[in-house]
Amino acid sequence: MDTTQLKHLLGEMTRAEKIGQMVQLAGEFYKEEDSENTGPMHEMNMTPKKMTVSGSVLGISGAETLINIQKEHLAKSRLGIPLLFMADVVHGYRTIFPVPLAMASTWQPELVEESANVSATEAAVSGLHVTFAPMVDLVRDARWGRVMESTGEDPYLNQLYARAFVRGYQGQDLKNDPFSVAACVKHFAGYGAPVAGREYNTVELSERTLKEMYLPAYQAGISEGSKLVMTAFNSLEGVPATANKPLMRETLRKELGFEGVLISDWASVGELIPHGIAKDLKQAGELAIQAGVDIEMMTGGYLNYLNELIDEGKVSEELLNEAVWRILTLKNELGLFENPYRGANSELENNLVFSKEHREKARIVAEESIVLLKNEKQVLPLTHHQKVALIVPEDQSKDVLGPWSWKGEPSESVSVYEGLLNHISKEAIVVKTIDHSKNDRPKDWLDDVSTADVIVAALGESSYMSGEGASRSNIKLPAEQIQVIKELRTLNKPIVLILFNGRPLDLTDVVQDVDSILEAWFPGTEAGTAIGNILYGTKNPSGKLTMSFPRAVGQVPLYYNQDNTGRPLTAYNQEDKYLSRYLDVDNRPLFPFGYGLSYTQFSYSPMKVTLSKSEREQTDKIIVETTITNSGKVTGSEVVQLYIRDKVGQVVRPIKELKRFKKILLEPGEVATILFELNQQDLEYVHQDLSVSVESGEFDLMIGSNSEEVETTTVYLELKKNE
Amino acid sequence: MDTTQLKHLLGEMTRAEKIGQMVQLAGEFYKEEDSENTGPMHEMNMTPKKMTVSGSVLGISGAETLINIQKEHLAKSRLGIPLLFMADVVHGYRTIFPVPLAMASTWQPELVEESANVSATEAAVSGLHVTFAPMVDLVRDARWGRVMESTGEDPYLNQLYARAFVRGYQGQDLKNDPFSVAACVKHFAGYGAPVAGREYNTVELSERTLKEMYLPAYQAGISEGSKLVMTAFNSLEGVPATANKPLMRETLRKELGFEGVLISDWASVGELIPHGIAKDLKQAGELAIQAGVDIEMMTGGYLNYLNELIDEGKVSEELLNEAVWRILTLKNELGLFENPYRGANSELENNLVFSKEHREKARIVAEESIVLLKNEKQVLPLTHHQKVALIVPEDQSKDVLGPWSWKGEPSESVSVYEGLLNHISKEAIVVKTIDHSKNDRPKDWLDDVSTADVIVAALGESSYMSGEGASRSNIKLPAEQIQVIKELRTLNKPIVLILFNGRPLDLTDVVQDVDSILEAWFPGTEAGTAIGNILYGTKNPSGKLTMSFPRAVGQVPLYYNQDNTGRPLTAYNQEDKYLSRYLDVDNRPLFPFGYGLSYTQFSYSPMKVTLSKSEREQTDKIIVETTITNSGKVTGSEVVQLYIRDKVGQVVRPIKELKRFKKILLEPGEVATILFELNQQDLEYVHQDLSVSVESGEFDLMIGSNSEEVETTTVYLELKKNE
Repeated sequence: MDTTQLKHLLGEMTRAEKIGQMVQLAGEFYKEEDSENTGPMHEMNMTPKKMTVSGSVLGISGAETLINIQKEHLAKSRLGIPLLFMADVVHGYRTIFPVPLAMASTWQPELVEESANVSATEAAVSGLHVTFAPMVDLVRDARWGRVMESTGEDPYLNQLYARAFVRGYQGQDLKNDPFSVAACVKHFAGYGAPVAGREYNTVELSERTLKEMYLPAYQAGISEGSKLVMTAFNSLEGVPATANKPLMRETLRKELGFEGVLISDWASVGELIPHGIAKDLKQAGELAIQAGVDIEMMTGGYLNYLNELIDEGKVSEELLNEAVWRILTLKNELGLFENPYRGANSELENNLVFSKEHREKARIVAEESIVLLKNEKQVLPLTHHQKVALIVPEDQSKDVLGPWSWKGEPSESVSVYEGLLNHISKEAIVVKTIDHSKNDRPKDWLDDVSTADVIVAALGESSYMSGEGASRSNIKLPAEQIQVIKELRTLNKPIVLILFNGRPLDLTDVVQDVDSILEAWFPGTEAGTAIGNILYGTKNPSGKLTMSFPRAVGQVPLYYNQDNTGRPLTAYNQEDKYLSRYLDVDNRPLFPFGYGLSYTQFSYSPMKVTLSKSEREQTDKIIVETTITNSGKVTGSEVVQLYIRDKVGQVVRPIKELKRFKKILLEPGEVATILFELNQQDLEYVHQDLSVSVESGEFDLMIGSNSEEVETTTVYLELKKNE
Repeated sequence: MDTTQLKHLLGEMTRAEKIGQMVQLAGEFYKEEDSENTGPMHEMNMTPKKMTVSGSVLGISGAETLINIQKEHLAKSRLGIPLLFMADVVHGYRTIFPVPLAMASTWQPELVEESANVSATEAAVSGLHVTFAPMVDLVRDARWGRVMESTGEDPYLNQLYARAFVRGYQGQDLKNDPFSVAACVKHFAGYGAPVAGREYNTVELSERTLKEMYLPAYQAGISEGSKLVMTAFNSLEGVPATANKPLMRETLRKELGFEGVLISDWASVGELIPHGIAKDLKQAGELAIQAGVDIEMMTGGYLNYLNELIDEGKVSEELLNEAVWRILTLKNELGLFENPYRGANSELENNLVFSKEHREKARIVAEESIVLLKNEKQVLPLTHHQKVALIVPEDQSKDVLGPWSWKGEPSESVSVYEGLLNHISKEAIVVKTIDHSKNDRPKDWLDDVSTADVIVAALGESSYMSGEGASRSNIKLPAEQIQVIKELRTLNKPIVLILFNGRPLDLTDVVQDVDSILEAWFPGTEAGTAIGNILYGTKNPSGKLTMSFPRAVGQVPLYYNQDNTGRPLTAYNQEDKYLSRYLDVDNRPLFPFGYGLSYTQFSYSPMKVTLSKSEREQTDKIIVETTITNSGKVTGSEVVQLYIRDKVGQVVRPIKELKRFKKILLEPGEVATILFELNQQDLEYVHQDLSVSVESGEFDLMIGSNSEEVETTTVYLELKKNE
């Protein structure tokens, strides 16, 4: 449809039809009997008549089902405006990839893009049009359960990943590519910073920090063309995002230039009432549309009161038309007016969803996302003639998909045990399950474990303990698991700890008791295959953390790119009390941002820095060069990282900021030269007056294999303040 | 001196003399040999010649010493401008009162005022002119060591205490009252909110929260007439307070109307260099004076570079004159031009400092500040025929003064043991000391403990573990003490835990193992006397917490006046996962704000609410009435607390806000009627655009004996939006 036609369509619509476009219902409504009006339908004051006007549906899929719903809808729809089908496809549809925090550990945006592409294909052929992803919220507090859905604590990496996800979901041509879905950047804004890491809690940020640290990833996703943005649950500057007019109309629309559909989060319009911002659902609806929320998900503020609000002059017809125009535009951009069924195709659904090819991609991403945190005495990789004792929590052996794996089937996923079987025989494995509900294990439980050559303990969080609604005040391993590790240690056997979890854990209690630690996160469908391949060296681990692992929960929020203080703790003043420090714990994390080991070693040549003036601006351009050698015995990948520190700023600068990285694969003995180029734009930051600029001065350039082990060169750069 | 004379004096001063007024040196400089130029003098590039121009001195006292220094100074001073003597007199000079967080637990600003008055008297006769107090920073994070110097997490209480301290220090007539000192409100601004509770760390606050929660106490101290304000160490909106021009020139000077002397914190001008805001001390000095810092403490930015900066036109003469004018005005307001020795008087120093009368006041305040947190089976008060086993950490029996007790002498203070001797004989006490450095206690250590009728364990933090530079990631009792309590529990004797500490502790590990808990804080000089009196019921405890005690460090920052969320956890939805909560711990503190028990019981009649229109504004005035009865058997004090909740605001409102309270003493059976009056002004709050206003609507009025146990009445109030 061209713009004229679309405008004509808008002109034809009744007010009720317009309002209907702004309503999103869950699929369950469509399963209820028409004649009944109970349950969710009752709560939303929904009648079968009202339902026919609704413009989108969430949380239902399957080509045949959605084709039928669309067909029925169009048959009843006066103007033939198709429904939009949306769902949470976060790290895979049925082929489940590692959780986003794990995928981030690949440091390979191109893999993230491929994963999103596979997800989009599976979702699209199953009839979906929009995924509520990516979540690009920057995170600094490991207590928050939803850090698993983020790509971590770094704004630069988060930007790259935001773009990769959006590209992967939306493809090159959303209108004509039936294997794509529209993306929805979420949650605008600041949802990743709840006070005390408590889910849905108030967010406390200065405008400057919001702009410098949190907005860039949203901006990146929007610049990459994300068709939707979702509002956050939290309040920011005292106002819940869903009712926050300056945030939505100024920051999102004007500053970030977002022109697409703004959708509420689940019930977040109605939640303006418990938030204490609206006295009733009518006022909630009014506040949301004034803020510019186009679609209300799962509450009835728009459906039941928008008409009245317009009649009373509290909401203008213009606001209504603005919202509906954006929704119609989205439907048109998805090609729904030409083909309301779009990608939905039962045959392709059968062939593509959970295909061997997709699972293979999931395996590759899982292998790249696993982080080797410790490997004393080269316990890993294992050898094929070792007898293995495998320790797993009862009922968690298939709990490898993690939160947000809606259509993922645990039973279809590969357990660690199954993964081991790719490398050794059944007879070489002793399996011991531990039961969380029982405090006592039989006294002889260690007897057959002690017959093994090596212990592989696959422990960590259940998926219930991670994700939305899963904030934890204690971020250690479950107490019983810590006890199990202590008992295993008494056997004096090598212990490999494989961790399943969605957040950085406090591993202080166990780090000395095990020889090797593989951070597997929730690796998805091919969990066991990937883990098995890494355990036996078929794949050399190369993941690197994108979120700091604290030594104690009392250190959080903890992040590598923290602002400097006036009394920094350094290597040279450890005895001084009056510093920015704790009495009882090191300031540093247990495992820092950017950290991850390999089965091989990499050596870095001294860095070389070259400055040259850019022609146009006469500002310095910086080229940083280093040479990396695989000095070990096996092929492996290294993530070479470049950080900067602006030594003097008009505002306090972070002690380190990631500016470039490169992941390279090197054969034993192979040498690679890495060149990084930085220019003025890479050094700009947000000033106190919220302008973005930079000044000439000294900068530390730091290169290394993680955020702590770096080589530093200081340069003086001539830069030009922005006008 | 009148204004004309003072202006004339300013006109007479050379630039060097002016700069000298802006320099503050520590007393140790005056102890160094004139001929030497090493140590601190060397670091500050200080010469004996430069020293003669300096305008103030910190951290030295004693009438004779200061009279001599002043005499010598005046002899060398061309214009005869006297020195200012300043010091940290925080909760007493030599007679030490409880730490401020403890004094806050009295809920008696009049007692705080008296304590400040005693401190001022002792300091003034010892030659001091200014105290670096009160610290009025709002605090919400128990990890921060300096919460002991705050009055807690409530802006209303903090305001009352800020005023009380200022009144107490400054008296009615600063110029003519030789027993007063000038107050210094600190630390402007937001020092109490360091990220992750780590001392000196960055502060992350929205402007709105700063204005609503943090600024009121500074404002109160300033409105009460505090002559000085001190800058904070931390950065706020990216800029360290000491260089934060908008914060100092707009917020402090214009909004809060502060006209007095702004002094840096210790070395905080020089620390602009490690902060990364200044490239050198010269730039640091420039930034500080531009921000409006009048006196630089302990670094040499002004002393060494201000002249040069003025020559170069980077700093105007006006800025210099502005600062010097404020300093001269302060000296004049203190009457120093008329009497440069002011209160300094060796005879009075001998008579008044640590006088019996002052110690008696310290005892009273200590008694009122102790909080009874638990008292199962009425183990307390003790009876005189019980044999007591007293458990104390070795070397901590006199560690009762707490941080910031400069001139306080532990040896002069009363230990718990000495306090017990006021009530029972030596023979009735078994003393057991535990040694932190040893993990093993002798096996028979419990033998004589088990001969006692009751165990009194006086444990907690050493003063080293509290105060400035004492952030802790773990806020439990020291592990060894927890172990000791577990061992004591095995004796099945009643256990009374007396806690010494400067912060809310996580007591979850031990709360079930003891029968009674007395939160004694650091009670000061008369610690043992006060504790003894409470243990034996000579005094009925009546303190109430002003900072929440968390169940786990993973809950912090935790505070009663938190903003509501869109998904609040209530009594009725405990099973729901998707709420603002943790999986593993209750949202509520272990002991809430306002909490504290008594040896008697108080019963509250149902509250009565009366509304009436104010004549002028036609807005509602609210009168809340309740009747309290001492329904127990002993005389006791109750703190009746009135909270409100604005049910619908333009920004999210706190779930509770303290608005009024009253501490009343009741005989057994006595009944008192309490009336609280609130008007529109009490209900105003900071809107998103930073204006202060209010809207008509529903408000919950809550009355009770702590922030959790309240009776609620909901009223609709007609209020008028401010123009």
